Amino acid sequence: MRAWLHQAVDPSARAQGVSLFNLVICGLILIAVLIAVLETEQTLVDQFPVFFYLAEWLFFIVFAAEFCLRVYVAPLNPLFTGRFGRIRYLFSLWALIDLLALLPFLLTGTDVTAYYLRLARLLRVLRIARLGRFTHAWAMLGGAFHARRYELLISALIALLLLLVSSTFLYLLEAEGQPDAFGSVPRALWWSVATLTTVGYGDVTPLTAAGKFFAGITAVAGIGLVAMPTGILAAAFSDAFQKQRGEKQGG
Amino acid sequence: MRAWLHQAVDPSARAQGVSLFNLVICGLILIAVLIAVLETEQTLVDQFPVFFYLAEWLFFIVFAAEFCLRVYVAPLNPLFTGRFGRIRYLFSLWALIDLLALLPFLLTGTDVTAYYLRLARLLRVLRIARLGRFTHAWAMLGGAFHARRYELLISALIALLLLLVSSTFLYLLEAEGQPDAFGSVPRALWWSVATLTTVGYGDVTPLTAAGKFFAGITAVAGIGLVAMPTGILAAAFSDAFQKQRGEKQGG
Amino acid sequence: MRAWLHQAVDPSARAQGVSLFNLVICGLILIAVLIAVLETEQTLVDQFPVFFYLAEWLFFIVFAAEFCLRVYVAPLNPLFTGRFGRIRYLFSLWALIDLLALLPFLLTGTDVTAYYLRLARLLRVLRIARLGRFTHAWAMLGGAFHARRYELLISALIALLLLLVSSTFLYLLEAEGQPDAFGSVPRALWWSVATLTTVGYGDVTPLTAAGKFFAGITAVAGIGLVAMPTGILAAAFSDAFQKQRGEKQGG
Amino acid sequence: MRAWLHQAVDPSARAQGVSLFNLVICGLILIAVLIAVLETEQTLVDQFPVFFYLAEWLFFIVFAAEFCLRVYVAPLNPLFTGRFGRIRYLFSLWALIDLLALLPFLLTGTDVTAYYLRLARLLRVLRIARLGRFTHAWAMLGGAFHARRYELLISALIALLLLLVSSTFLYLLEAEGQPDAFGSVPRALWWSVATLTTVGYGDVTPLTAAGKFFAGITAVAGIGLVAMPTGILAAAFSDAFQKQRGEKQGG
Repeated sequence: MRAWLHQAVDPSARAQGVSLFNLVICGLILIAVLIAVLETEQTLVDQFPVFFYLAEWLFFIVFAAEFCLRVYVAPLNPLFTGRFGRIRYLFSLWALIDLLALLPFLLTGTDVTAYYLRLARLLRVLRIARLGRFTHAWAMLGGAFHARRYELLISALIALLLLLVSSTFLYLLEAEGQPDAFGSVPRALWWSVATLTTVGYGDVTPLTAAGKFFAGITAVAGIGLVAMPTGILAAAFSDAFQKQRGEKQGG
Repeated sequence: MRAWLHQAVDPSARAQGVSLFNLVICGLILIAVLIAVLETEQTLVDQFPVFFYLAEWLFFIVFAAEFCLRVYVAPLNPLFTGRFGRIRYLFSLWALIDLLALLPFLLTGTDVTAYYLRLARLLRVLRIARLGRFTHAWAMLGGAFHARRYELLISALIALLLLLVSSTFLYLLEAEGQPDAFGSVPRALWWSVATLTTVGYGDVTPLTAAGKFFAGITAVAGIGLVAMPTGILAAAFSDAFQKQRGEKQGG
Repeated sequence: MRAWLHQAVDPSARAQGVSLFNLVICGLILIAVLIAVLETEQTLVDQFPVFFYLAEWLFFIVFAAEFCLRVYVAPLNPLFTGRFGRIRYLFSLWALIDLLALLPFLLTGTDVTAYYLRLARLLRVLRIARLGRFTHAWAMLGGAFHARRYELLISALIALLLLLVSSTFLYLLEAEGQPDAFGSVPRALWWSVATLTTVGYGDVTPLTAAGKFFAGITAVAGIGLVAMPTGILAAAFSDAFQKQRGEKQGG
Repeated sequence: MRAWLHQAVDPSARAQGVSLFNLVICGLILIAVLIAVLETEQTLVDQFPVFFYLAEWLFFIVFAAEFCLRVYVAPLNPLFTGRFGRIRYLFSLWALIDLLALLPFLLTGTDVTAYYLRLARLLRVLRIARLGRFTHAWAMLGGAFHARRYELLISALIALLLLLVSSTFLYLLEAEGQPDAFGSVPRALWWSVATLTTVGYGDVTPLTAAGKFFAGITAVAGIGLVAMPTGILAAAFSDAFQKQRGEKQGG
């Protein structure tokens, strides 16, 4: 019985494929997140107060039961065997996230800290990445990031430098005309980050000719800022995919 | 006679190249879509009412004739031989799209549902992708997407997480000052999606310092959101092109 | 003498490197384009009328002399030998561009068509791409584009489809509230192209909840629209670079 | 003693890893840059005048001491041995940057030129790129850029051409209606650079139908402008990573 439950509950218990139990739980997590998102809209809560109240309770019961089940079958996982297996499981990363995601149900709607804790529920969305084939894809993407962490850090460093240089220039050129938007480097950073990431809100734009000239150069540099990490990631993923193919052919 | 028509009408009947018939039809589809687009502009319809009326009828006759022709030669395709071949063809995907695209001609201009059906006409544009060499390119792109579907799904999952986290933060920080734009997570999502995709309309922007700080982080995360799928696709296409070259050299 | 001039004037006469003559001409072309750009600003012309007048005449004389020189040495190029070599040169692409770029000097400042002809001067900027090592890089990039023209066309086709679908949806959802911006599909296309290319001016944005929902989906689709051609180009360039390295090792 | 200091101070003295001294200095550089950024915000300086005054002095003493230490151990570096080693070190690039970064401390807050000199402090951030493993990553990225400099220059040339062509068209089409924004090509360039880089502030947008049509084409061309250098960089990095792997396997 417990072995059968373990097969259904623990995603690492299966060599491949996803159990129906985990599929349903992932679906419920997505629905719970959606409801938590909609619940912040006061007009909806006023329209359907009973629905949200019931949904909160229902999800609390389901997820609490799921949590107990996971604690119950934990010792069957080789990582959590032995006398203190269950306690060690309680302090594992995923169990803590699950626990943290249960807390906001108890504090529902009372104060602001409850909202912060609800963010924990979002982390459970990542649980989907542990299902079946996703584990391989997840490991490959993570490996590609790790293999090129120095290159990515350098491109982040260059981005930081560009942010500081462009906001300093715009501060020097536009501070007089627009003290609210460019009156200091931290203020000019808001414009700078919007331009270099090519978001470009347009709530703040330079007005002087010199300011526009440097802003244009910043915008062009922004292309490089997007192109460099994209290029590094593309090459890193290409490497990782080739290595995977090599392993398949070798195995 | 029917065999000659089949050669001209069915793109899969030829080993390579495109028949004049299919080239003309694809050109007419593009023109029909263009006219359907222009027809929604009332000032144009008021200026040239006869032109649009005639064009609608002309295209209906041409496409209806084309459809009948395709049904007539269908049994020569190995997929639709036998007694019920023509009926099976009528229920194939491309025949249904063609039929759906004929409907709005009959309901022209009367009500809103006619507009929705006109969208079917757009799908016929995809027919171009079935011509000659496009079939290979189409299959290769589709294969690359399919081979890396888990990696792409993970990057979509991360995007979803970033959307939810950033809109929750902005909701917590900006709800007081701008209840219309950030009064709830669903409302903040509008800003969040515009920022993470680097569109950046600028109709809604954070006003507090803390809000701008998190918005800046969101904008930087947006670069990652663009870079990751681009990198995955680049590596996947690179893989697919290499495999294709390998097959050519092997064959 | 003519042979020595030919070596200096014709970039294809040298196995590698760039002659001083062509370097100077390219520099002058860039300066002439810069002056033509500044000349459109009336306040500058009013301030320095003599400068612009003299510059126009100087550049006309220099470029006319350069053109005559190129015609003079043309027959030494194997492509333009024989009796009608010079005449054939006059009708070659680059000679026509050069001639077209000389015309606006004669029509300077008189009317609007002169401005259109000045665009020809911009085309001469491309001449830089014919210098020395650029020829190889140019050929490689062109080859990569050509090798994947079907894949790029398919991604353009999908982009067209997305443009039409998203503008149709926004037209259906927002036409009532904002007839000026979304009153027809061609009008909605302006918003649609700004969103799908992730430019996002923000002069027009949907106001209804349903409109914002579809606009969000459009913005996310915009990422794909950027990612797909970028991925195809990255893979195509990767292929081209590898082929080049293979040729070097083989040669 | 001096040899031990040299090991700690000179990053090139170690085969791998980073000395504690250099880690601390890099951390201090980042903090000094952060404080220099915050110091431009007058409201902060008014609130904590003593803090910024002390921080300036503290950083000046620390960085001056660091500079003296580097000069002291310079002759142990094989590049700066001999009688005039220290003087040659003083005129090396990194020493000049360090010296330039010390100057603004002496001129603090007095006039505008002090701000420009403070930019030198930003350059010291690049020092981080010289630490340990970063040196390899830095060299690899630089090598990839260098190997494809002609391709990148061509894509910059095409970008320049697109900028000029699109701003000329918009100038011709929109100058009448919006003389402030499109009254000359240099003015139209501001819109053009914002559109082609997909930043899209939206402070200036075309109003005529023809202007919007060409603006849409410009926006689509902007995708190519982003895709081309990204593709070139992705392929160049892919090449560089493969070469690195080849060297590792061969070594």
